[in-house]
Amino acid sequence: MADKIAIVGLGLIGGSIGLALDAARKRDKHLTIEIVGHDRDPEVANKAKRMGAIDRAEWNLLSAVERAAMVIIATPVLAVRTVLEQITPALAPGATVTDTASTKAEVLRWAAELLPDTVTFVGGHPMAGKELPGIEHAEATLFQGAVYCLCPALNAEQSRVETMAAFVEVLGARPYFVDPHEHDGLVAGISHLPMVIAAALVSATTADPAWREMRKLAASGYRDTTRLASGEPQMNLDICLTNRGPLVSWIDRYIDELQRYRQLIAEGEAASEQLAREFLRVQTERDRWAYGKRDDEGSERIERISFTQLLMGDRFARLTDYLRRSERK
Amino acid sequence: MADKIAIVGLGLIGGSIGLALDAARKRDKHLTIEIVGHDRDPEVANKAKRMGAIDRAEWNLLSAVERAAMVIIATPVLAVRTVLEQITPALAPGATVTDTASTKAEVLRWAAELLPDTVTFVGGHPMAGKELPGIEHAEATLFQGAVYCLCPALNAEQSRVETMAAFVEVLGARPYFVDPHEHDGLVAGISHLPMVIAAALVSATTADPAWREMRKLAASGYRDTTRLASGEPQMNLDICLTNRGPLVSWIDRYIDELQRYRQLIAEGEAASEQLAREFLRVQTERDRWAYGKRDDEGSERIERISFTQLLMGDRFARLTDYLRRSERK
Repeated sequence: MADKIAIVGLGLIGGSIGLALDAARKRDKHLTIEIVGHDRDPEVANKAKRMGAIDRAEWNLLSAVERAAMVIIATPVLAVRTVLEQITPALAPGATVTDTASTKAEVLRWAAELLPDTVTFVGGHPMAGKELPGIEHAEATLFQGAVYCLCPALNAEQSRVETMAAFVEVLGARPYFVDPHEHDGLVAGISHLPMVIAAALVSATTADPAWREMRKLAASGYRDTTRLASGEPQMNLDICLTNRGPLVSWIDRYIDELQRYRQLIAEGEAASEQLAREFLRVQTERDRWAYGKRDDEGSERIERISFTQLLMGDRFARLTDYLRRSERK
Repeated sequence: MADKIAIVGLGLIGGSIGLALDAARKRDKHLTIEIVGHDRDPEVANKAKRMGAIDRAEWNLLSAVERAAMVIIATPVLAVRTVLEQITPALAPGATVTDTASTKAEVLRWAAELLPDTVTFVGGHPMAGKELPGIEHAEATLFQGAVYCLCPALNAEQSRVETMAAFVEVLGARPYFVDPHEHDGLVAGISHLPMVIAAALVSATTADPAWREMRKLAASGYRDTTRLASGEPQMNLDICLTNRGPLVSWIDRYIDELQRYRQLIAEGEAASEQLAREFLRVQTERDRWAYGKRDDEGSERIERISFTQLLMGDRFARLTDYLRRSERK
């Protein structure tokens, strides 16, 4: 008999998991699974069914998780708690329960508090997303090549943890085991801070009296920098509520960094050498991350800039010549 | 005889203008132009020639602009001044001179100071870009549908201003006439501030001791928010030096906005209603800008949230239900 996998919450992530599982079993006939989906909104569940993300929709949450070998809770963080509370009586002994929420320390605390010892909880967080949320943007390849964080509960059964790692690989992602508190600290900087940055940029610019004109000139740079402001408000709110400490600390450090740039910019010509080095450094660091440039190239460029070119004073020659000879070619 | 168009500076923008002009004359045989390119780096000019962005490369700047009906200076801002100084003796009477730099007030000041009365200067700024700079990323369609700011000099000849508008349309862009100081104020908010935001995010995160782990988890959200940090350092430096006042003022306002979010996040549960409204508002505003959503839908959503759902206290139902019924379907 096919193993039952229940997906609770059929948004972008839950829907994409369903589509990825469906694609996997089409590739590999040995993967005999039944994918059952539940969503509070029957229209969303119907859509997931029509898209092939689930084999059938189950209106009743308890029926959805009953006899499931694996239960995947793909809702915003705070809803995970509610779902855990509700499904507990219906969980099959030996089931593996996981979630996909953006913060993990609170989720692991709830799982320890609410779930019976007969099931194993392994928190999950796929590091993948898209501009627009919702089942209509779900796709089977969303997790392809992505890092997928896994935080097993302290009492997790080893074999179930291995099941979760295999599940992640079936989705096309790479398992990354991490302590839940460490996870929350890391994602505060590279995911939650960028979300707040995007939100503040949208609220600051759109509140300006000149926005009516600014909006016409805003192009791809504004589009990319504000992308995370188009995320689900409930998801973003829950992130703030469950990752408050690390996020506030990152915002404080980020404001300090902005103040530093503001100072350099306000100083004008006098600070231009230092500002040039900053822009060159962030370009090098960002390209190194995004395109895997070799580390020594970057540092060599910065050295050459600082000790020779910046003293020459010929603006047209300065950075550009050096950059042109760099790895961009 | 074909009109000569000279492009000085063959990076992403100069190269894309050449490619777009070439595509335009292939579409319309009546457009008889010769595209001559100059770049300080002979390798770049050769590459532009091989890519078909220019008909021929001219190593000597003065020879490049001699007898040209139109001269397009596509360098970072401060280099525009140097080029204007150098080309003045070689400009043909009646020529139209333009640039593509990111700030306009200083450029118009230099043009008034340096150019003879026999030529017309119309500053330009195409609101289009790409993640990576350089001739190798140039493409004919870069300006398709983009807004293209035009700032005619005070003494500009009307017929030449019309030529510039036609030129912009040939590139596939839409001319947008604007006062140079107003231009600089507008782009400070939607283009230069986002660039500083991206740079500060990269420098704050990559300097963290945990970056070695963070970099593995960083995904598309981080990639998009930091995109502008991969821009040309010289271009970014010049922007800061020539648009200092408006940019510093925007950074200050942005820091205030971040402080406001920081406060709400630090307050936790107590401020969650207000924070929810913020995230909903920025999602609505950003989607309205990016996807042209109708204004009334957004405000209606905010109203409904604030007066009914937020009082109910059922987190799982709260925002999500309302969002699901919204225009995202």
